[in-house]
Amino acid sequence: MPEHRLKKGLVQVYTGNGKGKTSAAFGLALRAIGRGLQVYIIQFIKGGFDYGELHIVDKLPNLKLAAFGRGSFITQVPPSDEDVKLAREGFELAEKVVQRGEYDIVVLDEINVVLNLKMIKTDEVLDLIRNKPKHVELILTGRYAPEQIIAVADLVTEMKEVKHPYAKGLPPRTGIEY
Amino acid sequence: MPEHRLKKGLVQVYTGNGKGKTSAAFGLALRAIGRGLQVYIIQFIKGGFDYGELHIVDKLPNLKLAAFGRGSFITQVPPSDEDVKLAREGFELAEKVVQRGEYDIVVLDEINVVLNLKMIKTDEVLDLIRNKPKHVELILTGRYAPEQIIAVADLVTEMKEVKHPYAKGLPPRTGIEY
Repeated sequence: MPEHRLKKGLVQVYTGNGKGKTSAAFGLALRAIGRGLQVYIIQFIKGGFDYGELHIVDKLPNLKLAAFGRGSFITQVPPSDEDVKLAREGFELAEKVVQRGEYDIVVLDEINVVLNLKMIKTDEVLDLIRNKPKHVELILTGRYAPEQIIAVADLVTEMKEVKHPYAKGLPPRTGIEY
Repeated sequence: MPEHRLKKGLVQVYTGNGKGKTSAAFGLALRAIGRGLQVYIIQFIKGGFDYGELHIVDKLPNLKLAAFGRGSFITQVPPSDEDVKLAREGFELAEKVVQRGEYDIVVLDEINVVLNLKMIKTDEVLDLIRNKPKHVELILTGRYAPEQIIAVADLVTEMKEVKHPYAKGLPPRTGIEY
């Protein structure tokens, strides 16, 4: 086992209605690969959409990214069968990646939204956390983190929106919001 | 002027006592360079210290980083002459970089802490914001963002600590916390 592995991987949660949750996860990934750690980012909900991050990820060593989603916010409740199927595929990959323990950090981007929409059961993520190899750090992002996830997490940050330009009618901008 | 320039650069603030402020700024930088934007990160307080991000920045296109600090938290109030001098140097660079308008995004990492410690006057940052070229986006991070900065910012996120492992006595870990 390479010596750079974490002794104890924690569970970090970034939730809340403010901007910066996914960005924080990518920033953490950047820091980690700067130290030679291996990072796997699994994106839920997103995907099939043109995010700025995706253009640079291929150029970075030790960073892998897979996206499972149709690239738009899910407004239909309950979500469509197709959305549920994609979330399930993403979660099955997450289970494999975490259990194998080859990646030091596994980011489950927007997983909290998936749980909120009941596309995956909170108990399944709690099992993933409980059964993860000790050295694997998990980073869970997205609004509406369930209480049970917050209860077992080691580090939880709530991103609170204080001011947001969308409220002023400004559309999302290439390179900034996506 | 290259076509990728932002039409209107905003002022974003990431503040609060929670983890993820600097990471969010680096994540935003990653997204932006993925779109061909030019990003300059100026770090205050930090520097002279071995951060994981620094090891990867050189490998990234269109991203420049300069750090002005002695790499430790400033616990002495008022701060030492040396700390004030470094903050002033960093801010003078920030003024130059912003005014020239060659970088689409300028990150002033931990500038809020610098203001809180009165090493730079809040009025100076307000002037920087007021006089910036229209296309330049400013990202200001750090705890204790002054009210006057929040008032003029377009987007403000407060990172709120809900749970933190330092509270459990766990020391900062290489590749994760720095």
